[in-house]
Amino acid sequence: MNYCPDCAAPIEQRIPDDDNRLRAVCSHCGAVHYENPKLVLGTLPIWNNKILLCKRAIAPRSGYWTLPAGFMELGESTTDGAHRETLEESGADVEMGPVFAIFDIPHVAQVHIFFRAQMRSETLDPGPETTDARLFGIGEIPWDDLAFRSVRAALELFIEDQRLDRHMVHRQTILI
Amino acid sequence: MNYCPDCAAPIEQRIPDDDNRLRAVCSHCGAVHYENPKLVLGTLPIWNNKILLCKRAIAPRSGYWTLPAGFMELGESTTDGAHRETLEESGADVEMGPVFAIFDIPHVAQVHIFFRAQMRSETLDPGPETTDARLFGIGEIPWDDLAFRSVRAALELFIEDQRLDRHMVHRQTILI
Repeated sequence: MNYCPDCAAPIEQRIPDDDNRLRAVCSHCGAVHYENPKLVLGTLPIWNNKILLCKRAIAPRSGYWTLPAGFMELGESTTDGAHRETLEESGADVEMGPVFAIFDIPHVAQVHIFFRAQMRSETLDPGPETTDARLFGIGEIPWDDLAFRSVRAALELFIEDQRLDRHMVHRQTILI
Repeated sequence: MNYCPDCAAPIEQRIPDDDNRLRAVCSHCGAVHYENPKLVLGTLPIWNNKILLCKRAIAPRSGYWTLPAGFMELGESTTDGAHRETLEESGADVEMGPVFAIFDIPHVAQVHIFFRAQMRSETLDPGPETTDARLFGIGEIPWDDLAFRSVRAALELFIEDQRLDRHMVHRQTILI
């Protein structure tokens, strides 16, 4: 941030009086512009014990496989956002389930929340951000071609949950 | 947002080519400035079956009681942030527990995540954002003087969990 989004004057990095961190503060109007981590919402869509993955058509990690997920938008809930991303990226008709996992990724200032989702049919209709959407059995997961570490972590936890007949909400911090 | 934080040219609201929503787009450099919901992190600190509440010294809701909570900062995890806010607002030394509840509050574009927290002692040392910090038994909660609806919801769920001997992660959408 170089200029104040309110009044276009130059920004300076300083610690406001009632604060203890460097913030982007306007040198003219004094507005403090906070930067905060972003939420990414996704699903773990299941059909007959197979998992739905989408091959990304866009950067970052174009050509790699991901669970359907994307940035939360203003005005929606976390389940709304996860449901919307699933529909946009795969066309899958899912019934949203409970929270599956929360991944903290501090070095990119993101929090990823994945929900369990039960597919209502096998029908898929990938959108423009996806070149392919496909169901993978547990033995078929393309481990070497996954797009993101949170996706890998979610798949590993899902498999481990099944093995141990474990039902829980996971939280993990993914470090550099 | 009136001016581009990158180049100070006027912002226009339009739908970028590869998008389906109005965004703040720079009329000069073309940068798209996304706005996303913010995360608020807090704890439900417990000592001998009493709950720690803090009386707010600052707006919004100055003078009302809250669970320790605040905006997530860049570079921290959700548990880090909840722990930091608890220390800043109450001075309580807590052992962080698992996720207790996720509240979606779409009309203010916020997601509140509360963690269970076990106090290691009764010692409290409220910071500048808090005029008082106190332990409340379940029958003593100041229901008419709570600061936020997510705080009320968290306390109600905690009491109901105890009554039903229920152990779960809650998710609720709080509407207008």
